[in-house]
Amino acid sequence: MSDATAPHGVHSEVGQLRKVLVCSPGLAHHRLTPTNSDELLFDDVMWVDNAVRDHAAFVGDLRSRGVEVVELHEALAETVATAEARDWLLDRKLQPSLVGPGLVEPTREYLETLTPAELARFLIGGLSARDLPEQYGNDHLALAQDSTGGWEYLMPPLPNTLYTRDTTCWIYGGVTLNPLYWPARHDETLLMKAVYRFHPGFAGSTVWWGDPEEDQGRATLEGGDVMPVGNGVVLIGMSERTSRQAITQLAAALFDQGAAERVIVAAMPRLRSAMHLDTVFTFADRDIVTLYPRIMDQVRTFTLRPSDHASSDHASPGRTPVVAVIDEGQRAFVDVVASALGLDRLRVIETAGDNYESERQQWDSGNNAVALRPGVVYTYDRNTATNALLEKAGVEVIPIVGAELGRGRGGGHCMTCPIARDAVDY
Amino acid sequence: MSDATAPHGVHSEVGQLRKVLVCSPGLAHHRLTPTNSDELLFDDVMWVDNAVRDHAAFVGDLRSRGVEVVELHEALAETVATAEARDWLLDRKLQPSLVGPGLVEPTREYLETLTPAELARFLIGGLSARDLPEQYGNDHLALAQDSTGGWEYLMPPLPNTLYTRDTTCWIYGGVTLNPLYWPARHDETLLMKAVYRFHPGFAGSTVWWGDPEEDQGRATLEGGDVMPVGNGVVLIGMSERTSRQAITQLAAALFDQGAAERVIVAAMPRLRSAMHLDTVFTFADRDIVTLYPRIMDQVRTFTLRPSDHASSDHASPGRTPVVAVIDEGQRAFVDVVASALGLDRLRVIETAGDNYESERQQWDSGNNAVALRPGVVYTYDRNTATNALLEKAGVEVIPIVGAELGRGRGGGHCMTCPIARDAVDY
Amino acid sequence: MSDATAPHGVHSEVGQLRKVLVCSPGLAHHRLTPTNSDELLFDDVMWVDNAVRDHAAFVGDLRSRGVEVVELHEALAETVATAEARDWLLDRKLQPSLVGPGLVEPTREYLETLTPAELARFLIGGLSARDLPEQYGNDHLALAQDSTGGWEYLMPPLPNTLYTRDTTCWIYGGVTLNPLYWPARHDETLLMKAVYRFHPGFAGSTVWWGDPEEDQGRATLEGGDVMPVGNGVVLIGMSERTSRQAITQLAAALFDQGAAERVIVAAMPRLRSAMHLDTVFTFADRDIVTLYPRIMDQVRTFTLRPSDHASSDHASPGRTPVVAVIDEGQRAFVDVVASALGLDRLRVIETAGDNYESERQQWDSGNNAVALRPGVVYTYDRNTATNALLEKAGVEVIPIVGAELGRGRGGGHCMTCPIARDAVDY
Amino acid sequence: MSDATAPHGVHSEVGQLRKVLVCSPGLAHHRLTPTNSDELLFDDVMWVDNAVRDHAAFVGDLRSRGVEVVELHEALAETVATAEARDWLLDRKLQPSLVGPGLVEPTREYLETLTPAELARFLIGGLSARDLPEQYGNDHLALAQDSTGGWEYLMPPLPNTLYTRDTTCWIYGGVTLNPLYWPARHDETLLMKAVYRFHPGFAGSTVWWGDPEEDQGRATLEGGDVMPVGNGVVLIGMSERTSRQAITQLAAALFDQGAAERVIVAAMPRLRSAMHLDTVFTFADRDIVTLYPRIMDQVRTFTLRPSDHASSDHASPGRTPVVAVIDEGQRAFVDVVASALGLDRLRVIETAGDNYESERQQWDSGNNAVALRPGVVYTYDRNTATNALLEKAGVEVIPIVGAELGRGRGGGHCMTCPIARDAVDY
Repeated sequence: MSDATAPHGVHSEVGQLRKVLVCSPGLAHHRLTPTNSDELLFDDVMWVDNAVRDHAAFVGDLRSRGVEVVELHEALAETVATAEARDWLLDRKLQPSLVGPGLVEPTREYLETLTPAELARFLIGGLSARDLPEQYGNDHLALAQDSTGGWEYLMPPLPNTLYTRDTTCWIYGGVTLNPLYWPARHDETLLMKAVYRFHPGFAGSTVWWGDPEEDQGRATLEGGDVMPVGNGVVLIGMSERTSRQAITQLAAALFDQGAAERVIVAAMPRLRSAMHLDTVFTFADRDIVTLYPRIMDQVRTFTLRPSDHASSDHASPGRTPVVAVIDEGQRAFVDVVASALGLDRLRVIETAGDNYESERQQWDSGNNAVALRPGVVYTYDRNTATNALLEKAGVEVIPIVGAELGRGRGGGHCMTCPIARDAVDY
Repeated sequence: MSDATAPHGVHSEVGQLRKVLVCSPGLAHHRLTPTNSDELLFDDVMWVDNAVRDHAAFVGDLRSRGVEVVELHEALAETVATAEARDWLLDRKLQPSLVGPGLVEPTREYLETLTPAELARFLIGGLSARDLPEQYGNDHLALAQDSTGGWEYLMPPLPNTLYTRDTTCWIYGGVTLNPLYWPARHDETLLMKAVYRFHPGFAGSTVWWGDPEEDQGRATLEGGDVMPVGNGVVLIGMSERTSRQAITQLAAALFDQGAAERVIVAAMPRLRSAMHLDTVFTFADRDIVTLYPRIMDQVRTFTLRPSDHASSDHASPGRTPVVAVIDEGQRAFVDVVASALGLDRLRVIETAGDNYESERQQWDSGNNAVALRPGVVYTYDRNTATNALLEKAGVEVIPIVGAELGRGRGGGHCMTCPIARDAVDY
Repeated sequence: MSDATAPHGVHSEVGQLRKVLVCSPGLAHHRLTPTNSDELLFDDVMWVDNAVRDHAAFVGDLRSRGVEVVELHEALAETVATAEARDWLLDRKLQPSLVGPGLVEPTREYLETLTPAELARFLIGGLSARDLPEQYGNDHLALAQDSTGGWEYLMPPLPNTLYTRDTTCWIYGGVTLNPLYWPARHDETLLMKAVYRFHPGFAGSTVWWGDPEEDQGRATLEGGDVMPVGNGVVLIGMSERTSRQAITQLAAALFDQGAAERVIVAAMPRLRSAMHLDTVFTFADRDIVTLYPRIMDQVRTFTLRPSDHASSDHASPGRTPVVAVIDEGQRAFVDVVASALGLDRLRVIETAGDNYESERQQWDSGNNAVALRPGVVYTYDRNTATNALLEKAGVEVIPIVGAELGRGRGGGHCMTCPIARDAVDY
Repeated sequence: MSDATAPHGVHSEVGQLRKVLVCSPGLAHHRLTPTNSDELLFDDVMWVDNAVRDHAAFVGDLRSRGVEVVELHEALAETVATAEARDWLLDRKLQPSLVGPGLVEPTREYLETLTPAELARFLIGGLSARDLPEQYGNDHLALAQDSTGGWEYLMPPLPNTLYTRDTTCWIYGGVTLNPLYWPARHDETLLMKAVYRFHPGFAGSTVWWGDPEEDQGRATLEGGDVMPVGNGVVLIGMSERTSRQAITQLAAALFDQGAAERVIVAAMPRLRSAMHLDTVFTFADRDIVTLYPRIMDQVRTFTLRPSDHASSDHASPGRTPVVAVIDEGQRAFVDVVASALGLDRLRVIETAGDNYESERQQWDSGNNAVALRPGVVYTYDRNTATNALLEKAGVEVIPIVGAELGRGRGGGHCMTCPIARDAVDY
């Protein structure tokens, strides 16, 4: 069981990583087929056994370097080990509007026979109508036989839990429970709320913003767009998946609670290939970033400040918005960031290769590095050209085998949710 | 203003139509472009002026035949004419999570300057960031400038209000407020809740089921799948858009309140071309239906009854579901329906023409007839072959000009929500 | 029967139109379904009866204004009225590699029983395996029963003949037989070759370039990209459908035969919405063009000249290309065109309306005007806003009803192939 | 250099494999990007270095088991080592209609400076305008700069050469030069024609049918659909890619030349997931097949015989088709095949797993086995469940690493073109 000895909090993108949340591939990925993968946001099916193996190797490497790794199946099993937490979660997962009125009771009866680990496996991996043992079924089950020969889910599979980065994010000393963009991912946040509410290692954490039990409208936020870089600054990508409504609410919440002083918004084109800021821009060292220029060149930059910092011509008299918006106009995002960090400039390592090669490398998460400590990052092995450029710049690159893990379009940064990471000096 | 002299209630699919809700094309359709039409569920852009003209002709014909027609822009304007209703609706439409925290107040200030008709036009047609007059703007507006050169919506356009059939449906003496499948349509139901709550002609109606202010999970229901055919029977298509979870909850609600005795479920393949039951099956007379055999041949049929009617081998001992499910196995849907209505059989008119022609006619809403009274239906003019078959069978066909209106894939049945319709004898 | 009293030749885009080739909608469009329309390059099915009516109205208007109109079904019937022409065409359409070895003879036997008009109808409309009367069938027909319930074509339908502009184009005193981009359209050019070879009104025409009986590799050319504007200048769009290989070959052929002195190439982005130059740029008067700025702003311009005109630094010593290429760099296409015509500038009328409206108007062929004479053009009725701008600039606009005809994404310019048009003075 | 000591000819699907043609991944796959992969028929980009490694391991295993392996880059280099062959190929690849008239000469001059191996690499991998060294360029090169920032190809990349199975196929003692379905693959057959015409190890082979220099109309054939199973029988899938027109022509050619006595046609649904017969059906032993039931259950079966074998009621009097077609009606394909081979029945191993698993395994080429000898097959390692079933049935399974190679949707059967394989006894 995870203990809370390391004080939680993420104070930079590249400081020493001390504790991190990951989620192993598993049952949910066995549910992926060419037919349903689009709906579940995967580009291709994966060989689950090998994905599990490659993920375990990544986790093993993190542990061997002293990082405490929390695995979501395990954390969730520890969470639902108490009746209170189990009931809280099943009350929410097994409502008539989700399971169908005739199947709530038998499904619950069945799930209550399971061990915490078995229950956690179905909570993440999904429970199909076919998984319900015959003695728990009734006449309503016939309706759940899908016309296409599959079976409906009583609890949907959540294969994108693999990308723990998105669901919650630590910003300095507190965490957010994110309203994810696609309906196929909404339930991930509910599972995390249970962990943060009931798990002994996480209960009592400060939650800055977000609640999966509230309707958050068009406010959607994914952690792949959020980077607490230090100096009281948070970078946020405004993307296909992270909306203006969420960013300004989060900024207000951070400013109100004194958690941050400045949010720098990267307004990105809405593209599947650039779904989050961290798919085109990550930090490799204190002052080194790797980025994909064809997207980053199109980014417009805004700075959000508590409203009393706003210059008088931006503030409308008679209104008191908590957040002031400063349009940075033609200033490049990297320059705005450097200046907020007190750096002269950021050293930029672009995706390597000619037009063909760089487009391929970005697609294969070539810019999606996650730092162990300043100047030491994990990336997929397949992006050899970009990795070589990082190494040439003095960055140590530890490879992750990406043949299977990469098929959901997420790399090392996406697969990790740092829980404790040190600050760096600027 | 609509008055409530006609007692509301829909007691069949083909009895004399007395009162009906429609929604004219308008501002929302001016927002459609080739780029956004997919997201807004339209297959093509339309020439709005002509769509307005053709819709007005349809409405005029209904009125000339004695039907009372309620138009949604007008009904909504009448609704928001009172401060109470206006505030109720703006409280819900202008939340920080929808509009963004910096823009709630200026947007509300602007909307409160408008006449009820102008407000209703924006509630249905959408309010883009560019629509906000300059003096109401502030620094937050810059964030709402879309990177693609468009502008974000502060309130989204609702072009599918054109299809009033889906949003609410009268089933005998009460109405349902439907949770629609696509997020792009969710707000339609909120507008209708305001009408049913505050409009003098509708307040006090019995609501069987549904509330847009509650999260209804995976329970989704669209009126194009619902047909109260009489004899206490309701037909419901289980389709891409109408889920098992909604159907069984609705059935339970109807049975509990004594509103119906039997629900016959048509389990359909999940296809865009057959999105609702009424796109492949409608009634043209007491015992005449028009249907598209290539889809209807794939339908599986289930009957739902209050559970005490269920045969003992279907009911699980020790459990008390309100709804019993009977799998009709190989029995054809039309036979199950005929037998529930006490008819020997239904006379079936198939979509006309060879393979090419019938596929085209179904696509062009050829089976989407709506009855004025038994044996008199409205359909699109373009489905000449199917219309000829209907006429040969003694059905009078009144044409609707479909060149523009049909581009959202909905015909006369989809564009009408009957509010008062007589029963027929079986 | 068409006579050749008008001397053929197209000497401008806007001079008096004297003779034009069109093709009425017909059998080919009855073959379109939602399933096959993509493959046949249509966005939607059309109501053929009304498309025929609207096309006839357009043709009637042309005739009433003194234009001689040749209709392709009629011209083709006149062509195959002689045994020589019929045999020439059937020899080419009924090869074993097209029809299947077992079906060549019976298909030919059947087609030889038909009148010229019936044969022309099948040549354009396609001949499905089901169209072959039973007595002509044999055991091979069973193989042609499509697994999806349709029937294979023994001769494919050619619905894009509606757009006569593309298949052949008159450039000053001669014509080109164009290699069309999509395989679904290749046979159109073969039909036109038969007309130009055997029809008494067309035989003997000068053919500058192109032969559908030769493999033209990656050289593809569509007439919607070709505009002989006068002054020895030809504008050609380099687009999704018209390739560099074709443009440079055509330019060489024109220069060699003294037919033109200069080709101005508009290098366009490859987009379905801007498939030809004439979908985003056409002439409305001697010095007035209507264009869609969001595409035209992205165009790069090149000028092709006979190589001895090229400046010495462009010509490579020791090689003798017939065509010299001049990169116009940052000069706008309209400026290069104006200067080639000896005009100070072109007056530009942009697609009307805000972002939404102008995208819709371009999509609906709003910039696809075809001139009757200088300052008098035909466009679709639905583009009211752009039409109003044209009229405000003094251009007379004659509307074509576009509800059905526009569903293949082509307007008046696409539907007409001028055969005789006067020059204008510059 | 490959020698011709092994007599060429393929006499079964599972007899001892003696000689086989493969093609290593290479330059063509470096050209694949997320943007162009659709057009080049790949579902995803691949890590080329690892694909090369995994392919080399497969080839090494074949060689270690005594199979003679011919690699296409090498065979092509050996072919173009003579001036005659090089000129023949460059004459055809560098025509003005392919390269553009201004670039034929400089491209040829450059290519003629290369070694045979370098030339073979560009013939397969494509030559982009950017690959032409500066001193060979001229003013025409500017036109070849793609508007999207890429570069046009002077010779297109042919990444599907990886699937040598499709391009040519040995049927008993002779070979076919196949007209492939997609234009992106046409040039593969031209390269193979050069090999079969000029390479000392292949010149003089009997060619049953096919010539890439002729227009073969709608006759398209891919080797993945062709299986010479022995006993004078050939199985052919009639699929998205292999047409009736090709099958009947090929059957006629085989019957005329005494090469086969019977062709059994599997008429398949047209689906990307079942593009060839060998994606859903292959042999693992003399009487063992592995198949994907969800597709094979939809197959209709026809038998083709020389026409004098046809029963009198099939032959039309007065006509003399060379091929008679027998509709097998409701007889299952596997039963028709077994009976033609003189077997009581075929033992069938279905794709393993539940609905999810089997759909994944078929997608991952789980049924695409290629036999080394009876009862010994190669398949991808990732299809562990289907592989286990094969092994349980006594088949030895040798794994190929499929993480990268499988991304073009082809397995071991697709990647091999047997040139010499023994018969088996039936």
